[in-house]
Amino acid sequence: MEKNLQQDLNYTKCGAELVYQGTAVSFYKEHIKLPDGRMVEWDLIQHPGGAAVLPIDDEENVLLVEQYRNALERITLEIPAGKREAGEAYEVCAARELEEETGYYSEHIVPLGKSAPAVGYSNEVLGLFYADHLKKSCQNLDEDEWIHVKKYSLTEAVNMVMQGKIIDSKTVSAILMYAQCKQEK
Amino acid sequence: MEKNLQQDLNYTKCGAELVYQGTAVSFYKEHIKLPDGRMVEWDLIQHPGGAAVLPIDDEENVLLVEQYRNALERITLEIPAGKREAGEAYEVCAARELEEETGYYSEHIVPLGKSAPAVGYSNEVLGLFYADHLKKSCQNLDEDEWIHVKKYSLTEAVNMVMQGKIIDSKTVSAILMYAQCKQEK
Repeated sequence: MEKNLQQDLNYTKCGAELVYQGTAVSFYKEHIKLPDGRMVEWDLIQHPGGAAVLPIDDEENVLLVEQYRNALERITLEIPAGKREAGEAYEVCAARELEEETGYYSEHIVPLGKSAPAVGYSNEVLGLFYADHLKKSCQNLDEDEWIHVKKYSLTEAVNMVMQGKIIDSKTVSAILMYAQCKQEK
Repeated sequence: MEKNLQQDLNYTKCGAELVYQGTAVSFYKEHIKLPDGRMVEWDLIQHPGGAAVLPIDDEENVLLVEQYRNALERITLEIPAGKREAGEAYEVCAARELEEETGYYSEHIVPLGKSAPAVGYSNEVLGLFYADHLKKSCQNLDEDEWIHVKKYSLTEAVNMVMQGKIIDSKTVSAILMYAQCKQEK
């Protein structure tokens, strides 16, 4: 089908209804007017947004957390991350999740970029950071959270991404963004 | 709260109910038995999986598609991507989406890795590829799809990722994975 691209990307939102309130996210049915005037119903997962942080220790190792993910039916290796609390800044969220999940805190949390994980159906946006100058504190996991903290060199972490051993998108992005920053220096 | 990590990551799936059938994804409520025996209900978005492909032209430019995303209420720059059809191989899906969205086809579609965009609530897994030796064909967009094809050098694309101008996670991952491959050569 040929389309006139001059018609431009002129979509209009015409209201959304909550169809299911989940534990972590909410599912809406959204009414959209297409550029040609037709109406469609599209999915919209509402997510509060969150932050994810790549922890770097004094020997330039990265700390990753191993945890179970029911959606994937497997254990994944990820950087510490979590949802924002109401009104919470991305950086504050990153600092909190770092300490809760790894038992280290940092006063040096540096932005790497942003990530929209699932643009086709979710409004989730994650702030991505790295943190160094780590200080020992103590882990403080959520009640339904079990996590193992693992340590890898940056090279090992990059290799695990390139070999498909790390597939979590925020972790892939943060490791490769950090490696890119180091390379540009 | 202190937890015994020796208890391990022993979660058990105990059934899931469809609570809403969306247009692109389905929303399930899943019953999970935690490592300590308690039962919880977690969200599960069922997605058929898909593929995304970074097109590289003969001058080493990358082709990106500009499109409207209702979930983010904005226009994004992304690599061509789409859901798998029933039983479709990731690579076949990548080739199809490349041609439909950009109007180029390629017989040289190379795996870059995999990405799980939203491990906290979605079972979506994307195969990531790059494609070169592009041949002109014609665009064939879905009925509700309007897209502009844009061309950038690889350096420009990497810079747009690092500056937060490209935030779509599959696009961030594929651009940085490809840059990493080139660097390793």
